[in-house]
Amino acid sequence: MSLDRLIRKIIQTGNPTVAGLDPTLDFIPDFIKDRCFEKYGNTLEAAATAILEFNKGLIDALFDIVPAVKPQCAYYELYGWQGIKALHETIEYAKKKGMFVITDGKRNDIGSTMQAYATAHLSGVNINGQNIEPFGADALTVNGYLGSDGIEPLLEICKNNDKGIFVLCKTSNPSSGELQDKMIEGKAVYRIMGEMCEQWGEKLPGQFGYSGVGAVVGATYPQQLEELRGIMSKTFFLVPGYGAQGGKSQDIALAFDKNGLGAIVNSSRAIMCAYQKSGADEHEYALAARTESERMRNEITSYLPKIKLS
Amino acid sequence: MSLDRLIRKIIQTGNPTVAGLDPTLDFIPDFIKDRCFEKYGNTLEAAATAILEFNKGLIDALFDIVPAVKPQCAYYELYGWQGIKALHETIEYAKKKGMFVITDGKRNDIGSTMQAYATAHLSGVNINGQNIEPFGADALTVNGYLGSDGIEPLLEICKNNDKGIFVLCKTSNPSSGELQDKMIEGKAVYRIMGEMCEQWGEKLPGQFGYSGVGAVVGATYPQQLEELRGIMSKTFFLVPGYGAQGGKSQDIALAFDKNGLGAIVNSSRAIMCAYQKSGADEHEYALAARTESERMRNEITSYLPKIKLS
Repeated sequence: MSLDRLIRKIIQTGNPTVAGLDPTLDFIPDFIKDRCFEKYGNTLEAAATAILEFNKGLIDALFDIVPAVKPQCAYYELYGWQGIKALHETIEYAKKKGMFVITDGKRNDIGSTMQAYATAHLSGVNINGQNIEPFGADALTVNGYLGSDGIEPLLEICKNNDKGIFVLCKTSNPSSGELQDKMIEGKAVYRIMGEMCEQWGEKLPGQFGYSGVGAVVGATYPQQLEELRGIMSKTFFLVPGYGAQGGKSQDIALAFDKNGLGAIVNSSRAIMCAYQKSGADEHEYALAARTESERMRNEITSYLPKIKLS
Repeated sequence: MSLDRLIRKIIQTGNPTVAGLDPTLDFIPDFIKDRCFEKYGNTLEAAATAILEFNKGLIDALFDIVPAVKPQCAYYELYGWQGIKALHETIEYAKKKGMFVITDGKRNDIGSTMQAYATAHLSGVNINGQNIEPFGADALTVNGYLGSDGIEPLLEICKNNDKGIFVLCKTSNPSSGELQDKMIEGKAVYRIMGEMCEQWGEKLPGQFGYSGVGAVVGATYPQQLEELRGIMSKTFFLVPGYGAQGGKSQDIALAFDKNGLGAIVNSSRAIMCAYQKSGADEHEYALAARTESERMRNEITSYLPKIKLS
């Protein structure tokens, strides 16, 4: 009923990072793609098969040192229902390897519709008496613009299924301030959203002090990261924007608490495409991903206190 | 590059309403479900097959009197990739029948990720030189919490593919005010979002005076509906909340302009489940949907000026 399973994996691996799985065809080595195009033609099925194989290779290379993966729905929807099938199989594979899976869907709606999203991604649906997990992730990113009606349906499902959510709070992009930084009676919108996260989280307390309602807070805004860490003592952070977008490790340290916990930092492209950047043989893409992932872990943890369980 | 195709369909049918296709198994007649469970067992495939058959029956009954359908993604994700396949086939079928398709996904992300969503739902993806439409809707609902970085990628794709979007502005749910009604320097958040819609829309002008950037404005808040219609002269409204949620036809009239255009009103459950409410034989579900749809059209248009093309 919280993010405890994630926190335990972070403690176990000593690694507060998550590997984003946002695979477009451009990122996938030719030796995988060519085989798929040959077998399935220039079809969505070929693309989806290539994505799944690429992802499995990454998961095999990372599962013992990285606690979690974060597949981004958009890159699976891009390849139609066949891509969504690859998403499902990626989630299944990562979980079998013991990884915590955060589906990055930024879903949002109200009432029974939000309940349908929550059931789809975090629970099981009743099919004529049979309970089937449509996707089976461990956590889902969501957008709180619609207010509590959009979040409440998730809380019950998280509670009953030991799952969590991450609510968009202060996102990492340059224009995030257009709405999120606007001041309402002396408080920025992102802060109001943060306070709502703390409140929603009260229904899902966790054993490490963090609730099942996490927040997305970008690495690219260190001042806001520090401010929000200060007022959101029970909310675990998912931190995008490290690396390519400009977020630095010393800034990211502000997302963590004095015990070295409190956040998980995402990297997608730098890990997936490490082989392209390092000039490694494309057959070594998985090893290159592991090397980059270790580098990132070492860099980020060098700015953090050793994990202490209080 | 705008919502002109939708507006033309509204003029042609004399009907400013859209049928929401949010099919859960509970809404589907037993004669359809039983056949599917018998053929495919208690599986997601059986559920998805039932949904598609149900949807096709509704589309056959509505396509000549209703301009558009709005499938809600959540109810397809609920049945896994098999459900998403049914979404794709529903869109294809509705378009073949000449209907305008609004995919209700409330998608949101930034940069290349938002571009992936836009390509998935409104355009075509390049698979080894072959251009394939993953879903092929005519318009997509989106959430603007992330600011322009989340909307700009859509504008280019809408322009190049003659598609449109609807941005959440003031939603119909009871808690929508928690964030959306908060005042920022004398302006409510929903109004700031509305002004952003007007601005984004400048890149996608349409021949009827409405741009390709529409807004979602709930029927349950008539005061805000009137306020937003007043300041958003170039923004077409998608209006949820009619009927079950409490939105009344006389209030909904506030969403329209003096020429009887400017908005399209959604009804989902009342149309899909008309046979349950009217006590009709379940085999007559499509006819019951048509009857309810005609009733809704007559009721809503009775409060509107006759459509005039200025």
